[in-house]
Amino acid sequence: MRNPAPRETILTLFSQTPDGFVSGERISAELGVSRTAVWKHIRSLRQAGYLIEAIPSRGYQLLQTPDVLMPEAIQSGLECRWVGSRVHCFDETDSTNLQACRLGDEGATDGLVVIADRQSSGKGRMGRRWESPGGVNLYASILLRPPILPFEAPKLTFLSAVAVCRAINICTGLQPTVKWPNDILLNGAKVAGLLNEMSSETDQVHYVVLGIGVNLNMNAEQFPEGLRYPATSLAIVAGQVISRLDFTRTLLQEIDALYQIYLEQGSTPILSAWTELCDLTGKSVQVDCNESQVEGTMIGLAEDGALLVRTAAGKIESIYAGDVRPA
Amino acid sequence: MRNPAPRETILTLFSQTPDGFVSGERISAELGVSRTAVWKHIRSLRQAGYLIEAIPSRGYQLLQTPDVLMPEAIQSGLECRWVGSRVHCFDETDSTNLQACRLGDEGATDGLVVIADRQSSGKGRMGRRWESPGGVNLYASILLRPPILPFEAPKLTFLSAVAVCRAINICTGLQPTVKWPNDILLNGAKVAGLLNEMSSETDQVHYVVLGIGVNLNMNAEQFPEGLRYPATSLAIVAGQVISRLDFTRTLLQEIDALYQIYLEQGSTPILSAWTELCDLTGKSVQVDCNESQVEGTMIGLAEDGALLVRTAAGKIESIYAGDVRPA
Repeated sequence: MRNPAPRETILTLFSQTPDGFVSGERISAELGVSRTAVWKHIRSLRQAGYLIEAIPSRGYQLLQTPDVLMPEAIQSGLECRWVGSRVHCFDETDSTNLQACRLGDEGATDGLVVIADRQSSGKGRMGRRWESPGGVNLYASILLRPPILPFEAPKLTFLSAVAVCRAINICTGLQPTVKWPNDILLNGAKVAGLLNEMSSETDQVHYVVLGIGVNLNMNAEQFPEGLRYPATSLAIVAGQVISRLDFTRTLLQEIDALYQIYLEQGSTPILSAWTELCDLTGKSVQVDCNESQVEGTMIGLAEDGALLVRTAAGKIESIYAGDVRPA
Repeated sequence: MRNPAPRETILTLFSQTPDGFVSGERISAELGVSRTAVWKHIRSLRQAGYLIEAIPSRGYQLLQTPDVLMPEAIQSGLECRWVGSRVHCFDETDSTNLQACRLGDEGATDGLVVIADRQSSGKGRMGRRWESPGGVNLYASILLRPPILPFEAPKLTFLSAVAVCRAINICTGLQPTVKWPNDILLNGAKVAGLLNEMSSETDQVHYVVLGIGVNLNMNAEQFPEGLRYPATSLAIVAGQVISRLDFTRTLLQEIDALYQIYLEQGSTPILSAWTELCDLTGKSVQVDCNESQVEGTMIGLAEDGALLVRTAAGKIESIYAGDVRPA
């Protein structure tokens, strides 16, 4: 088990008291530090935006939690077995995936999470750019070390997709759909994108990084001109501000739960859940592959994650890379 | 086209003159530098071990080429289309694969070669150690950026294996055999090992690194105690010292030729060539997999690179990871 940081322990204590009060003595005992040290931790939480009052003879009271992404707030009481074992939060980084890969090369353990408030070089699929303004969205990368063969790993994209859809549904009540291979849509517009990367040798995965970008509170003016596909945010569709902290915690817990299912039962339940979230299943689609185009009826996913399309001639095509749209 | 380094140009000029003489004037004109600069390049080649005499009125004469692995010597006249576009030679590095991966992350181009005289943390398959003493062997990593899907990449191990066998045969006349998935044997003892690594996203390979370790001139005393399998070197079997430079150049050319075949015709010819080099095809084998053991007759390779074994019950097992040995 990891050792929680002092600020995380304090936040957990606050969350566990029904009246919101925690005595300095209690915190001091729990952390095994002096009352002066407790006061310094409280001050650092206040500096991070927590509204904490000190009431003589009753102790500290947490009045307001800011919507900041910091490890202690994300980890406090997080119900995860793997995901979030370590959490790194950056104000700015080039790309959370690049950070996670670098940490993976240095031996980072299973479940590491890298989050950035903004990305200077946010990456989309196939070297495309992912718009990453600060203060509004979630840019997260989760490093996993599953005991699988490299050819199994691409299917983990479906795990991220299902987790993002579930987190959106839990936090907003909205029901997103998925678009093969790595997009999440609300009302047909892109609200989240996934970029999974892997480092492997021939018969062993070193690590997989699940890169997840979710447009939470971006407003219409923040989207650049000339996007390949229409884009939106949860706030635009839900008509309300989304708590980045709540969303992040929910998402990490959903990923963790699905990862446990994956490790115990394999990818079949994950692929089924993804197929149910895909509104193009059974519909006419057109798929732009690198050098060709396939038209037909989308049947679903093959066992290996390929998109299955039945052409007019009755042939079933297995597609491993391409852009799909309704025909 | 890359621009050859001055020392490479000089070595190429030496190799092109039938009498071994090249005038300082000629070198000066070819490089577009002063006679003093030519003299400095000649001096640096001498310092690297080249025996070069200066004969008044006739020019420079190359009398002896040392067996050192340096980029200019490897690249001079190398007949490759991709491999060797850049060559980095280290006296010592942690692992040529790690170096090549780091350079790959930084954007190194297709065909980069990393060579080290010795490795402080030479890597074998599955995190095992690869003995890497200095001055005797070849430790090389070749970075490729093939336009393929990640699940195709593991098959490139067979490409390295065939290339190593061909280079051994060309340089010594010996006929090695291959052992699935990544060993090269001479008289049943391991003479070379392969460790291919990959960085990829779901539907795109960023790069593949072909890691190749060949025991060229190691003597019996240099092998550590308690190796998993018997090991040998080309010099031990051939009874003669092997030129590291000749072997390296031959190997890179063989990899390049096979890579061209792979890009044009796919993996089928590579898998066929590998199967012909495998002396266990059609024989009884035992395969230790992670949690199970498979016994039967080795049939060959599946299209996806899996080892195919027909069990006594007549079932054909496809094996993706394991250690195979004669039953």
